[in-house]
Amino acid sequence: MSMQEFITLDDVKAAAERLDGVVKCTPLEYNNTFSSMSGSGVYLKLENLQRTGSFKVRGAYNCIQAMDKEKRARGVITASAGNHAQGVALGAAAANVSATIVMPESTPLPKVAATRGYGAKVVQAGIVYDDSYREARRLQKEQGLTFVHAFDNMAVIAGQGTIGLEIMRQRPDIEAVVVPVGGGGLIAGVAAAIKIIAPHVKVYGVQASGAPSAYLARNAGRPVEAPGAHTLADGIAVKKTGEITFRHIQRYVDDIFVVKDEDIAATILLLLERSKLVAEGAGAVGLAAILHNLIPHHERIATVISGGNIDINFVSRIIENGLIKSGRRIKLETDLVDRPGELRKFITTIAEHQANIVYIYHEHAGKNLPIGYTNVEMDLETRDAKHAEAVVVSLRQAGYKVEVI
Amino acid sequence: MSMQEFITLDDVKAAAERLDGVVKCTPLEYNNTFSSMSGSGVYLKLENLQRTGSFKVRGAYNCIQAMDKEKRARGVITASAGNHAQGVALGAAAANVSATIVMPESTPLPKVAATRGYGAKVVQAGIVYDDSYREARRLQKEQGLTFVHAFDNMAVIAGQGTIGLEIMRQRPDIEAVVVPVGGGGLIAGVAAAIKIIAPHVKVYGVQASGAPSAYLARNAGRPVEAPGAHTLADGIAVKKTGEITFRHIQRYVDDIFVVKDEDIAATILLLLERSKLVAEGAGAVGLAAILHNLIPHHERIATVISGGNIDINFVSRIIENGLIKSGRRIKLETDLVDRPGELRKFITTIAEHQANIVYIYHEHAGKNLPIGYTNVEMDLETRDAKHAEAVVVSLRQAGYKVEVI
Repeated sequence: MSMQEFITLDDVKAAAERLDGVVKCTPLEYNNTFSSMSGSGVYLKLENLQRTGSFKVRGAYNCIQAMDKEKRARGVITASAGNHAQGVALGAAAANVSATIVMPESTPLPKVAATRGYGAKVVQAGIVYDDSYREARRLQKEQGLTFVHAFDNMAVIAGQGTIGLEIMRQRPDIEAVVVPVGGGGLIAGVAAAIKIIAPHVKVYGVQASGAPSAYLARNAGRPVEAPGAHTLADGIAVKKTGEITFRHIQRYVDDIFVVKDEDIAATILLLLERSKLVAEGAGAVGLAAILHNLIPHHERIATVISGGNIDINFVSRIIENGLIKSGRRIKLETDLVDRPGELRKFITTIAEHQANIVYIYHEHAGKNLPIGYTNVEMDLETRDAKHAEAVVVSLRQAGYKVEVI
Repeated sequence: MSMQEFITLDDVKAAAERLDGVVKCTPLEYNNTFSSMSGSGVYLKLENLQRTGSFKVRGAYNCIQAMDKEKRARGVITASAGNHAQGVALGAAAANVSATIVMPESTPLPKVAATRGYGAKVVQAGIVYDDSYREARRLQKEQGLTFVHAFDNMAVIAGQGTIGLEIMRQRPDIEAVVVPVGGGGLIAGVAAAIKIIAPHVKVYGVQASGAPSAYLARNAGRPVEAPGAHTLADGIAVKKTGEITFRHIQRYVDDIFVVKDEDIAATILLLLERSKLVAEGAGAVGLAAILHNLIPHHERIATVISGGNIDINFVSRIIENGLIKSGRRIKLETDLVDRPGELRKFITTIAEHQANIVYIYHEHAGKNLPIGYTNVEMDLETRDAKHAEAVVVSLRQAGYKVEVI
């Protein structure tokens, strides 16, 4: 494959054959809620339900199986703190090849455990990814291993392209496909597969505004190094698009859009609440772009929910923030006269609005409190921002000095 | 259908035809994680991805469409605080029939909004469900409406049975099916459909130990009123099995098991973290029973994840509790000498164990604090219970008086 400039449909079909029985053909689900919100018919390609919780295992396994016997006998290595680590670990295990994964020391514990769980040898080295990458390259030479790149590799791209094949088989009348873009491996493969089969289908890429590598490359006409890559969508926080992936993007992708982190977070919450799906930031950017009307309307549009490996602590923070932002949770603080019945009176005013008290903290003495007063903090569950506002206005009209915190 | 004692395969097939285009044929997904945990090959039937977020719309729509024209013209009514409310609301809207849903006054706001969102008229009446039910029966008579029962109705049961048809088509070699049981509508339909098609397939029911209506009925040989029904799986918190549903359970169900609330909560967290799926308590009981080895082993076993409508506030609580319980989150408190560098020393000991500090509260003065001391509260992220214990032991060996809170 080394002489080729672009992957072919045969490359993708060969990858699909190799992957059969190793990865899942994930569901492509029509979604009523997002369709009515966006005005397009929205289908979700659920790669968050893929083995390892992301699409990465497709490319990694295909790449390892495409190597010659000798290379496979010596083993593979990569550097990654994320989905690629688990993809290579499982891909190597399924191909009966030994794998070493170099992860930054700061990698969250569950990710280290998951990667080891697939049977890979994990080396924790370096403060940031670049350090881990250097250590992986050093080990590669020292031990004669083969490096598996996370995106800029023809076999990896062909493996990710199998998602395009599946979408075209599951919904042959699809009109557009929206794909998250980090280094570009996923969109390169999907766009190539789809455009070769059905050139009339539109393929759009979406990036986080804090890590717009492919967006910048498209403007510059070549991959350029971004000054930084900061986004809650850590799976696509890549500073520079690949050479091979960019070539595919230029040939096959119709347009690239960027979305803001707060829209990504809101979309993660929507997916949880309305669609009962856990998506990571990178997995939610395509849908975020559709829901914020960046993408042209289509009767049938698919977006790849590329992964679901989000830190579970972060999920509970997104829930809290989302509820507050949408006015469904409000934090109040007030001082009450320290006299029996005052708290009951205050609560009665709230109850009249049918707001639900989920947390209450009542302090009888404190250094910042005027004598004769008590301090009350409350979390209320409200219907929406209007309802929350109505509660606050009523309390103020009843004479309470209420602060929203 | 009124003369029948049991639903027939034709009833279920007729329901499937009616439902075509209104509800989804939800995915039946093989799950590697739960298969290796349990030793059975586990398939999840994802009714949490169904429209309205639960299977209930199947039975409700089939029941409404099976009514004669006159009844449909007058409209339907039901009492429900949960999934049945949304099922009837959407089912009626899809059948172009007006619907009134009586909900308890305490119903969480998002559920009221969702039910209204499907176009139903919502009446909030009564403190608990029984009050709402009485009000619904009163309105039914007054306005000549037809009451749609949540489970004890032949057409509702036939509608839920379509899930059994789908499983047998998606995985004809399935050996056993595990179904959550509340009033019994879901299991009555699924068991009948499956046993008529394939009598060798085992059908097991699972209830929450706090609401074991069908389990008790089976022991008594008839539906009996349980003293209470308290479980976090509120979707199956039913005091008494239906007459019609119990008849089907006796004929078609092989066994009924019960699981504890804490095992249900742990399973909800596992589904979130490992399978990227949001399940409500009722939706997780079948998997909880499989993972806790209550269910006999099978090569291929399916369980219905019946719904995903869980209060999003509750999700963040389950995450927090689950992390603490599994030793992946630990809350510490200690008093430190109030002297520069003391906090740094304390933190260094923690860092040596590679535990991650996610929250820190440092108080310099407080009424319960000895003079010359400061108080520190911390949330740590740890690998597991053993790791958490090691951190605490080290701190104590270093001379700190540490309390785990």
